[in-house]
Formats: sequence, C-alpha cells, structure tokens
Amino acid sequence: MKTIQTMTLLFFLVLAFIGQTMADTTEPLSSWNQGKTKQQIIEFVNKVVMADSPDFVPAAERIAVFDNDGTLWAEQPMYFQLFFALDRIKQLAPEHPEWNTTEPFASALKGDMKGIIAGGEQAILDIVMASHAGMTTEEFEVIVKDWLATAKHPDTQRLFTDMVYQPMLELLSYLRANDFKTFIVSGGGIEFIRPWSEQVYGIPPEQVIGSSIKVAFEMREGAPVLVRQPALDFYDDKEGKVVAIHQQIGRRPIAAFGNSDGDLQMLQWTTAGQGARFALYVHHTDEKREWAYDRESSIGKFDKGLDQALAKSWTIVDMKQDWKRIFSADK
Amino acid sequence: MKTIQTMTLLFFLVLAFIGQTMADTTEPLSSWNQGKTKQQIIEFVNKVVMADSPDFVPAAERIAVFDNDGTLWAEQPMYFQLFFALDRIKQLAPEHPEWNTTEPFASALKGDMKGIIAGGEQAILDIVMASHAGMTTEEFEVIVKDWLATAKHPDTQRLFTDMVYQPMLELLSYLRANDFKTFIVSGGGIEFIRPWSEQVYGIPPEQVIGSSIKVAFEMREGAPVLVRQPALDFYDDKEGKVVAIHQQIGRRPIAAFGNSDGDLQMLQWTTAGQGARFALYVHHTDEKREWAYDRESSIGKFDKGLDQALAKSWTIVDMKQDWKRIFSADK
Repeated sequence: MKTIQTMTLLFFLVLAFIGQTMADTTEPLSSWNQGKTKQQIIEFVNKVVMADSPDFVPAAERIAVFDNDGTLWAEQPMYFQLFFALDRIKQLAPEHPEWNTTEPFASALKGDMKGIIAGGEQAILDIVMASHAGMTTEEFEVIVKDWLATAKHPDTQRLFTDMVYQPMLELLSYLRANDFKTFIVSGGGIEFIRPWSEQVYGIPPEQVIGSSIKVAFEMREGAPVLVRQPALDFYDDKEGKVVAIHQQIGRRPIAAFGNSDGDLQMLQWTTAGQGARFALYVHHTDEKREWAYDRESSIGKFDKGLDQALAKSWTIVDMKQDWKRIFSADK
Repeated sequence: MKTIQTMTLLFFLVLAFIGQTMADTTEPLSSWNQGKTKQQIIEFVNKVVMADSPDFVPAAERIAVFDNDGTLWAEQPMYFQLFFALDRIKQLAPEHPEWNTTEPFASALKGDMKGIIAGGEQAILDIVMASHAGMTTEEFEVIVKDWLATAKHPDTQRLFTDMVYQPMLELLSYLRANDFKTFIVSGGGIEFIRPWSEQVYGIPPEQVIGSSIKVAFEMREGAPVLVRQPALDFYDDKEGKVVAIHQQIGRRPIAAFGNSDGDLQMLQWTTAGQGARFALYVHHTDEKREWAYDRESSIGKFDKGLDQALAKSWTIVDMKQDWKRIFSADK
C-alpha cells in the first residue's frame, strides 16, 4: 500500500510539474494583438471553464460554431468554391459542346463573372450542379483534394488552404484545449470542406455542417455507392444555419463566430440561450493585408449583422488592429 | 535537467503502473457469455487499436454506428415512440373533439392498434404529426423527458429507459474506451432520442442521427425559436441510414450494429469500405427474457438481413445464448 501511495503522490507531483511547464511555454492566441478583443475571448473562456465560476459550463456543452468563408479563410474576390466550380466547368467543357452557346456556361468558359451574375441565383445554381454532381461521393472527394493541391488564388497566387486565418486557427486550438467542440457551419458545400477540414482546421468531418446536394444510394457491382445528384438538398445560410445546428448538433452552441449577415441568425440563436454566451464577428478592415468590405459588399455583406453586433455589444474583430498576422502562410 | 529526467522517468513508471492496475480490474463486456460472439468483438477491436497491427485504424476514423430500436433497447410489442405518440394523442384529445369520429385518431383513442394499422403508413404518419408537431423544439424536449420519467411499458411495467440492453451498454463503453466514437443511427425520431441518449447511452446529441420532421425559425418577443412542423423532413431507414451517415458523419463507419432489415444498407455500406470492418446483427431469440422474432415480424423484420449476415459471415448475437443479462434493470 505504501508503494501505491508514494507512486500516486509522485504521479500528481509530476502532473503538476508538467502542467506548469506547459502553461509557461504555450502562449495562446499569439497572432492576436493585446487589446479588448483578445481579452474578451480569454475572459469568456476562463469563466465557462473554471470549476468554481458561476458561469461554469460542463465540457460536453462547450459547443462553438464557426462560419467558414470570410471567418476561417478568405472569400474575396469570390467564394473559393466558385473558383473550383469554374475550373470544373472548363475541364468538363469538351464533353459539353452545347455550353459554348448556353448561359451561364458560355460566360463561365469566357471567365466572364458579370455575365454569370446577370443570370442571378439560378445561374450560380446551374454552375454548381453541373460541376458538383454526377459522380460518387468518393470520386468527388478526390476531385476536391486534387484541385486544392494545385489551384492558386488569382490575386495572391497562393494555395487556397494557405489563405486560412492564422489567428482563427489559434482560436480553434485554444477553444479545443479548453475542451470545446469546434464545428464549422458554412453556407458552402459540406463535401467541399470535409476533405481538408481535419488537416487544415483540426475539425473532423462529423463536425462540419454546410449546404448540400442530394445523394442517391445505388448498388454497383454488389457494392453500395452514393451518387451526387444535381438537386439542392439544403441551403445552410441565415435561418438555415440555425436549423442545421439544431438537426446536426442538437444542442445550442455557447459561442458563435461569423463575419456576415448570413451568420446573424446563428449568433442570435447562440446568444439567446441561458448562461454565459459569446458572439464574435470578424470585420474585414484591412485593405492592405487582406480586403476591406462590409455593408456594400455582394460577397460577405455585413450590414444588419454589424448593427446588431454594435447594439448587443458582441465582440467585433477589427482585422487591421487585432490581428498581428493574417494568413497561415504569412511570415 | 537531472530533475526533469528523473521526474519524466517516474511519470512513465507511474503511468505504466496505473495502466496495469486498470487492465487487471476492468472486465469488459461482463454481461456477455464467453463464446464466439464476444470473441469476435474483442478480436476486431484489438486488431484496429493495436499500433503494430496491419489493420490499425487511427482513433479519428474509429466510427461505430448503432441502430436504436431492437438494437440498444427493446421494440416490442411496438416501437416505444408509438406508445409516446398514443399517450400524447389521449392527452391532446380534449382540444380535438373531431378526433372521436376521425381515423386514425378514433382508433388511437380507443387503444385499437389494429384500427390504426388498417390505415397504413399514412395513419402512423398522421398520429406522429399530430403528437410531435406544433411546439418549439425546447418544449418538445421537456415533453419527451417528462413522459419517459413516468410512462411504463405495458408488459414489463418498467420505465422504457430501463429496457435498454445491458450487454449493448457495455459494448458502447468498451468501444469508447478504445477511442471509438459511437453514433446512434435510428429510424426513430432524432428529437425523441436526444433528450436521454447522453444519460442512458453516454452518446451526446451531436452523435444521434434519426428521422426528423421539419422545423421553422421564428422570432418570438425578440428571441429566435424553432417550431416543429407537421411535415416529414427525413426518414432515416434502409438507404436513408447510409445517406444520413454520409451527410452527418461524412466518414464511413468501420463498425455497424443493427437488428433488422432496416439496418441492412448501413451494414453493407460499413463493410464495403477498405480495411478491417465489423458488422453485427442482434437476433431476438429469447422469448422468455425478451421476445423472439425475425423473418415474420412486422416490427423489426429480420429476413433479408439474416440471409446476408449468414452469407457474409457477419457476427450474429443469439440473445438467448450470448447475453447473461438482458435489460439494464435486470438483477
């Protein structure tokens, strides 16, 4: 018995020692400048994780939801998934000679974004369906991975996955280190994000929520496959984000992170729960290192959301002021 | 430096010591009789978790999916959720005098199951919609919890949550102790299961997949609510289970557990993946301690699934032979 007691005592001493060392060497949120924003994040986390805090939240209920486009990675001059769709259209064009004379494909093949946009939402939908459907789910995963491995952003000439925000990566890690479960809740396609979310964000596929097209179960040579259909299944934006959080998580988040009006309902839903809640909006204010846009932007419009954030004193990241470094690939 | 080395060495010694002690005192799957079934489960788990095994699977990919009705808890003489629906109909009847003369409600109020079933699927759907819709999601959660706290099974006079299978609870724990993520994939309603799955099965709401009705986002007195609508959103059975696994998990499971033909596609999908896979069917063979039914049963029909399980040498639990104890509440 004495041996066990001694060993147990040593065990806790060693644990305490290691804990101390780690606490000393790991600076959380190191790409965030000191200031109100960083302080608000840390204060919120401390008050929900400290066992003696009146705002303590059990680990199982520490759900944090993140928009993707414009919140975890950039979204200008257009959503990165649209670059993917246009590249696919060009690749598939030889099999579709009719596209040369049919909109929105003719515009797409000429790289004429204005021509596409003139067709409205239906045009975008046509392009997404033509480029995202018709293959099995496993084939699509390979297509996405292959594209991301080589495609470059037209302005920065960087891989798109090098345009994730370093401060947000640190925020995701910081939350997870405090036993939060981090989810993506994106207007983008769920199957466009899952193939790389674990590697890039540390978020496994089952914690990615997004828009989706229908899939059909088929038996091929005795084995089941799922085939992607050219029909919208769910559009994960605005109210849709709340519905999807409810359907897929089934528990109200305690923290929500977004950057546009499309995230407003998600932030409202999160903050309407009882107990300590946190809502954060990323405001794109850095026209030199990234882009500056808000109320007038067609991509990532941030107008009603900005009004609400100001009225409710939600945390607003001023990218120019708050972020030491923007992209994960920045030095 | 010398102190750190000594402390580190001691740390690992202590860890090894504690590991040894735990291994000695914890007997996994203690309600399973010794035999082929238990052995197959343990062999599968060992080969995917041992780091030096050719079948090793990283923890993040250890996804296990479980049907609920008839696999984790009983389902006779009818799905427990139907008892809930009928009780709700009786409770709501005073507000609906027209139900006395309208089917399937008139039959439901008389407790005439044959009368209900005569109306086919539409009758069941009518009863589910009338009993499961019209309230907010938070109100519904309370209704489910309240009902489960007092409602008794007509044959056993037990709480329904006391009719979960003890050997399956141990199996869930055993898998989680080996870093599996355990999911429910049920034909039953997702919101009927989530209020109690964490407490009873140790499965958090975000790992519960099931059938669902539509919900609508509304602002009430400045706060968002989700209101349950009388319209089916998704029916999570047969091919639907595979579609839902794909949409909500986004990763093919390596182990699947079911009891009826409704689970067949899920087991096919799971076993069609590369690497080590495990499929298990619970066969209800114990007419004394539980119920005995398979090919001819209207609830939990197990016919095509049984043929496939035999043809593919999947693991089949013979409840009578393999389970020392059936229900969690059994002595």
